Amino acid sequence: MTKILVLNGPNLNLLGTRQPEVYGATTLAMVESACVKHGQMLGMAITCFQSNHEGALIDAIHESKGTQSGLVLNAGAFTHTSIALMDAIASVDLPLVEVHLSNIHAREEFRHKSFIAPVALGQICGFGSQGYLLALDALASHLTAAGLR
Amino acid sequence: MTKILVLNGPNLNLLGTRQPEVYGATTLAMVESACVKHGQMLGMAITCFQSNHEGALIDAIHESKGTQSGLVLNAGAFTHTSIALMDAIASVDLPLVEVHLSNIHAREEFRHKSFIAPVALGQICGFGSQGYLLALDALASHLTAAGLR
Amino acid sequence: MTKILVLNGPNLNLLGTRQPEVYGATTLAMVESACVKHGQMLGMAITCFQSNHEGALIDAIHESKGTQSGLVLNAGAFTHTSIALMDAIASVDLPLVEVHLSNIHAREEFRHKSFIAPVALGQICGFGSQGYLLALDALASHLTAAGLR
Amino acid sequence: MTKILVLNGPNLNLLGTRQPEVYGATTLAMVESACVKHGQMLGMAITCFQSNHEGALIDAIHESKGTQSGLVLNAGAFTHTSIALMDAIASVDLPLVEVHLSNIHAREEFRHKSFIAPVALGQICGFGSQGYLLALDALASHLTAAGLR
Amino acid sequence: MTKILVLNGPNLNLLGTRQPEVYGATTLAMVESACVKHGQMLGMAITCFQSNHEGALIDAIHESKGTQSGLVLNAGAFTHTSIALMDAIASVDLPLVEVHLSNIHAREEFRHKSFIAPVALGQICGFGSQGYLLALDALASHLTAAGLR
Amino acid sequence: MTKILVLNGPNLNLLGTRQPEVYGATTLAMVESACVKHGQMLGMAITCFQSNHEGALIDAIHESKGTQSGLVLNAGAFTHTSIALMDAIASVDLPLVEVHLSNIHAREEFRHKSFIAPVALGQICGFGSQGYLLALDALASHLTAAGLR
Amino acid sequence: MTKILVLNGPNLNLLGTRQPEVYGATTLAMVESACVKHGQMLGMAITCFQSNHEGALIDAIHESKGTQSGLVLNAGAFTHTSIALMDAIASVDLPLVEVHLSNIHAREEFRHKSFIAPVALGQICGFGSQGYLLALDALASHLTAAGLR
Amino acid sequence: MTKILVLNGPNLNLLGTRQPEVYGATTLAMVESACVKHGQMLGMAITCFQSNHEGALIDAIHESKGTQSGLVLNAGAFTHTSIALMDAIASVDLPLVEVHLSNIHAREEFRHKSFIAPVALGQICGFGSQGYLLALDALASHLTAAGLR
Amino acid sequence: MTKILVLNGPNLNLLGTRQPEVYGATTLAMVESACVKHGQMLGMAITCFQSNHEGALIDAIHESKGTQSGLVLNAGAFTHTSIALMDAIASVDLPLVEVHLSNIHAREEFRHKSFIAPVALGQICGFGSQGYLLALDALASHLTAAGLR
Amino acid sequence: MTKILVLNGPNLNLLGTRQPEVYGATTLAMVESACVKHGQMLGMAITCFQSNHEGALIDAIHESKGTQSGLVLNAGAFTHTSIALMDAIASVDLPLVEVHLSNIHAREEFRHKSFIAPVALGQICGFGSQGYLLALDALASHLTAAGLR
Amino acid sequence: MTKILVLNGPNLNLLGTRQPEVYGATTLAMVESACVKHGQMLGMAITCFQSNHEGALIDAIHESKGTQSGLVLNAGAFTHTSIALMDAIASVDLPLVEVHLSNIHAREEFRHKSFIAPVALGQICGFGSQGYLLALDALASHLTAAGLR
Amino acid sequence: MTKILVLNGPNLNLLGTRQPEVYGATTLAMVESACVKHGQMLGMAITCFQSNHEGALIDAIHESKGTQSGLVLNAGAFTHTSIALMDAIASVDLPLVEVHLSNIHAREEFRHKSFIAPVALGQICGFGSQGYLLALDALASHLTAAGLR
Repeated sequence: MTKILVLNGPNLNLLGTRQPEVYGATTLAMVESACVKHGQMLGMAITCFQSNHEGALIDAIHESKGTQSGLVLNAGAFTHTSIALMDAIASVDLPLVEVHLSNIHAREEFRHKSFIAPVALGQICGFGSQGYLLALDALASHLTAAGLR
Repeated sequence: MTKILVLNGPNLNLLGTRQPEVYGATTLAMVESACVKHGQMLGMAITCFQSNHEGALIDAIHESKGTQSGLVLNAGAFTHTSIALMDAIASVDLPLVEVHLSNIHAREEFRHKSFIAPVALGQICGFGSQGYLLALDALASHLTAAGLR
Repeated sequence: MTKILVLNGPNLNLLGTRQPEVYGATTLAMVESACVKHGQMLGMAITCFQSNHEGALIDAIHESKGTQSGLVLNAGAFTHTSIALMDAIASVDLPLVEVHLSNIHAREEFRHKSFIAPVALGQICGFGSQGYLLALDALASHLTAAGLR
Repeated sequence: MTKILVLNGPNLNLLGTRQPEVYGATTLAMVESACVKHGQMLGMAITCFQSNHEGALIDAIHESKGTQSGLVLNAGAFTHTSIALMDAIASVDLPLVEVHLSNIHAREEFRHKSFIAPVALGQICGFGSQGYLLALDALASHLTAAGLR
Repeated sequence: MTKILVLNGPNLNLLGTRQPEVYGATTLAMVESACVKHGQMLGMAITCFQSNHEGALIDAIHESKGTQSGLVLNAGAFTHTSIALMDAIASVDLPLVEVHLSNIHAREEFRHKSFIAPVALGQICGFGSQGYLLALDALASHLTAAGLR
Repeated sequence: MTKILVLNGPNLNLLGTRQPEVYGATTLAMVESACVKHGQMLGMAITCFQSNHEGALIDAIHESKGTQSGLVLNAGAFTHTSIALMDAIASVDLPLVEVHLSNIHAREEFRHKSFIAPVALGQICGFGSQGYLLALDALASHLTAAGLR
Repeated sequence: MTKILVLNGPNLNLLGTRQPEVYGATTLAMVESACVKHGQMLGMAITCFQSNHEGALIDAIHESKGTQSGLVLNAGAFTHTSIALMDAIASVDLPLVEVHLSNIHAREEFRHKSFIAPVALGQICGFGSQGYLLALDALASHLTAAGLR
Repeated sequence: MTKILVLNGPNLNLLGTRQPEVYGATTLAMVESACVKHGQMLGMAITCFQSNHEGALIDAIHESKGTQSGLVLNAGAFTHTSIALMDAIASVDLPLVEVHLSNIHAREEFRHKSFIAPVALGQICGFGSQGYLLALDALASHLTAAGLR
Repeated sequence: MTKILVLNGPNLNLLGTRQPEVYGATTLAMVESACVKHGQMLGMAITCFQSNHEGALIDAIHESKGTQSGLVLNAGAFTHTSIALMDAIASVDLPLVEVHLSNIHAREEFRHKSFIAPVALGQICGFGSQGYLLALDALASHLTAAGLR
Repeated sequence: MTKILVLNGPNLNLLGTRQPEVYGATTLAMVESACVKHGQMLGMAITCFQSNHEGALIDAIHESKGTQSGLVLNAGAFTHTSIALMDAIASVDLPLVEVHLSNIHAREEFRHKSFIAPVALGQICGFGSQGYLLALDALASHLTAAGLR
Repeated sequence: MTKILVLNGPNLNLLGTRQPEVYGATTLAMVESACVKHGQMLGMAITCFQSNHEGALIDAIHESKGTQSGLVLNAGAFTHTSIALMDAIASVDLPLVEVHLSNIHAREEFRHKSFIAPVALGQICGFGSQGYLLALDALASHLTAAGLR
Repeated sequence: MTKILVLNGPNLNLLGTRQPEVYGATTLAMVESACVKHGQMLGMAITCFQSNHEGALIDAIHESKGTQSGLVLNAGAFTHTSIALMDAIASVDLPLVEVHLSNIHAREEFRHKSFIAPVALGQICGFGSQGYLLALDALASHLTAAGLR
């Protein structure tokens, strides 16, 4: 069975507990659970991991090599600053879809730059937690088209 | 029934007829047809329009006001240069999803900038023609969540 | 009788029909009608044209050569991007007043740059539709002072 | 009766006395006198002040609070460098029209930037001394429309 | 017989009718006629097209695919701003020579940048209307050397 | 009792042990102890934490939510690079005072930029270890004025 | 007795009289009076001066040489533009604390730059009028530590 | 007799009284006196003026029109920021030599830019107070060569 | 005996296991082992450490103070972004040689910048794993020349 | 008879001997010989000179004054860096055509800038050694049109 | 026997004769002699050349083609400015190691840029004259590994 | 007797022979002769050298060490590009005065930058050939004041 790692970066653990009247009450646990469920529908086994530590995310990406078929990554603020994450992704050579809850290109200038993009299959941003499900759809299609599942 | 306009900008009419061994044999007609079919599944009536003329795209966006519930736009190269398109979208105040076949953030620096993004719901890029279907999914969810259908 | 062309660029056709509670209910037709009336007072015959097509605006500028004594131009978003419009104005060598409804220098950085300014007599911005009438006043004075009427 | 302060910044005291064969023979006194006369026609009492001292201009702006209904300001070279003037205008919260004799956007790059613009109603430039009269017209219309006279 | 399309962009229709004492009296018709004649000498059938509409130029480039062996393009002001034209040229994959009447690298900074150059065989600028004939010479040599005629 | 977290970032653990003849012999322990004592005077219970790990600092900020009334942060070098820390602070929505031992605006250009500033109440820099005590004073006043204690 | 000059720059004379419902009702006179009182507590005699004239501030700084032991300076908008003030401070070689009512690093980009910082002991910003008192505390500690009182 | 105004800008009044062991004991009075004496040798009557007020310098430049044959200006820090001074010099149309005590091109980047240079005959910097005498020599030669004395 | 710490940053743990046909089959363990062996030859005891965590690298640098005589550091991607690492190295004041496997100055622009360089003895890049041995040679010479061993 | 100097700059002596399977086997001698022959056809006597020394090229340009009617220059890498060559060309005031073998505007950013262009008649690039012949054609036409032969 | 050319650029002839108490007494002759000796140890015949003339260095590089197996180059100040040297190295297609006595990345910003790097095997800087010997070591290893000796 | 070298860089050999009606008829020989004569008056023996070769100028500067007491340098266009010249001057550690015929700060932006300035005593520009004599005056004063003659 196709295995996919859904990775979340800094501050995403606070999802749903922060200003729920604004950002909605969907917690990270709920997002991850929705991913697992959506994965089942697509025939993909989803593992989830979140960390506020750049090094822990790099470690997780390294470990995905040989054990996972693809990655979904919301690197949060590391998106704009972490060349180390970019290199980690390039090192494992797995298809990766970049996700952002908000439309980063409609926010502050420094959020337009992504160090993840050059090593990602594609980017999905602005659709809140639904973006993760769209990312899984995209990954499923890609793996099928590439004969990788 | 929810009505959606799928807009394609300059050079996208050549889709599928240009270096098919590289870009695939999917023509714009096939993409548009897949959109219509995917729309039916989502309960959305899809209209499609392509032009190499910036003015014609602006006219089409204007006309969508009051007749459409949302837009999917692949503005091609105009994405990076057309403030007029940005203003047109802001003027009609309809939810719009920005789509790109390729991952524009992994290409030349001048393709990273999007004048569409600040007035779009979100952006999907890098997944080829499947991006249009993901955009329709995102638009359907948004309209439902916002009580607009 | 002195003949003046009042040219409006992209999205200005939506004037008055978009968020009237915010921008007011003055339509482009009303603005153009006010220009015609104000022109009569100044002894100037006003012709009006609007297009969302950069090429159509260039064609109109070309045609004004030999048939008009001056131009009033609100190039909308093309102000900030169109070197072609700048060259067109330079080609016909007629006095032109640049108008903007909003104070473009108080908005986003990319709206501060004008490719029209280097070939315009002067610029009037921030006074809404009244700016067109001030522009006609300025043009009338200029033509009189220059002995062109 | 509506009271308006017409403020002129550095070097504008030399108007008309410098290279009259080029810039014309209109002195600052004549411009101010024309403003007073044009104000009478518009039902506005005009006071005029010029200084080469940035501090004196700031003082004058401060004093206009509670005594004037609006301002016309040609800040000369301070336009491009004085954040203090910008803050002064923001402090008194009066409608202000920015005027320049020449079309500053058609001159050296460093004259394109205006620190006055973000706190001004609008800008009029390129029409010589007539610009002051157009500014008074614009201010009169604004005050009437805003029910401030 | 080798077929070549000579394309001219915005404002080039005014050639020869504008300030003939400065720019010379050579009209666009005369340039095109000289191209046709020079083409005959080189064994190439020349078709000419001019438009002030970016979209029309893109359409013409698209249509040249499969019907022409090469292109000569003076994109005028679009040279510096049109990524869409660049993409159109890349799409049709035909040899193209970029021509400019004036030496664009000796003019304003914003005219030094060419979006056409990265997809052109080469660039010829500064030689007035003779540049078109040199471009045809270059194209003829290229096609011969590449065994394309 | 008001609870305040005093956070120190990378390399601040070396305080006082490095070149004491230059930087003085005040160790981090002494600074933290002075903070606790000063807090007692202000009626505030001070907790201290230092880490060279960006992730650990983010975790600590997250945990302060609901348990602390405010933060004092010397983010060291992360000040200039960590968007993740900025987002963490914005997420917990607690008043935070930014402290630096040295006057960062008088040092290398890259130390002038602070990603902490946009989400901080204010900044105190250049006063060595005394800056922490001033920060506690400022925080105490702010909490009192805002009725948060 | 230690003597300290508290200097305020352009527009700070309006403090408290401008939009009191927003900025509070504390006037400059009240701030200066609080400084004098706080100075008494610290054993420092405070003199206060405010001017909207850059030259007057420079003169005051020059005069402080030999008569004062230190300075507190809120240079307002001159902070970002006045190299002359920077040079004046460097010339008198007295310890100076830079104060700003608002957190300048959280405002417009052009307010992040300080020409005062390179010649100041340190900077305190974002704490409103309390910042002046913190500045006096910092100055007192510095003078004591340096054996200057 | 040829009359020359020697103008000094902000902070130059402190010359000689500040760190005399470093900068030497030459005061501004001594520099001015040396200028007068050197002027006598060159047959030029020297007037001297110093101010820390930009406005006062502008006033002095205006007044030199018609009364002086040339100017020597050390604008101090205003050199790098004052467009108003540049415009004042351009307005009076007198030959002016720019002087700096230090070699400004060997100091901080922001001291390399001179707004005086574009309207000055030439620049002399780096030779301390001798620079003024060299400037008078240069001015004398220029006036003689130009037949202005 | 001279003790040297060889530090490796993010992603270097993957050395040799990633695309061995391209990058060679030399693993990090083999590199470290070669360093130890080369160190023996030079009379230096080598300790090795690798981490993907910036904080762990900072901790290791801190711990080297007083226990090691020098460092060899390949900071990987942190080279280009970590001011915290730079500060850590400056804090321990030990001679450090910067190593990179690839010639970073021949790669993407963002890899040309090194925050390690300003606090390093020197830099060696582009020679693959041999670079570490050259670094040890350089360090040995430096320590000998400086009388530090 | 019209005399023309064909100048080649650094590294062009290696033409044809370097990677002939890529760049072709045309040597500089062959290019120069083709120039001479083409010149005969155009009634122009061609002299050729190549040097890797900037100074030698400047000397050659100086010597062309009074002895040559025009120049063809491929300055190689000096094109992008040599202001001295630009000044040399401006000094001799002869018509010069700038040639490049490759399309410099399609290569690295630093090759887009030409210091030769502002003092050249025009530029021809991208057509390999044929560019020299086109340059001679252009020069011949120019000299004829200008009545210089 | 493997032949290597050691090239030194501008000002390196002064090595050892300039401020020997600071830079040491090692002259260029001594460095070159050490290279020859070290080469013998590595089985490489070393030839040395120094020039202050960019053209002479280019000539020497050209001549190394076919006669040498590799190069060691300290281009001095030409490193940062000479595209011509870069092109020369690319033309001869020999392995080259870039050496600098000082750590150029720790000096002025303009010394960080190297035009040599993109065509060099690697770079060694900051180790004084020992860098040349390390470069020979690196070159020896490279040639052996690549089977070129 | 004090010995001074007057060095002239590229294109200055053409002085006086180029457009004499514009630049005057003063040749380089005349300038050098005036320098020699002026030197005699100042008790300084002047040697002159001009070259269009950067390397020859560097050689000359090197040779001045130990034989000359100071230099006057007009580096022409090399002023703006030659780091090698800057390093050469720093190497010989002799007082040098930078001269330019024109006011380089009033010309094109790229002529404002001087690589000579950071290693020069001072700069004199804009006074034509008289600048050389002023430079000798400045050098004489400096050498006297520094007790170097």
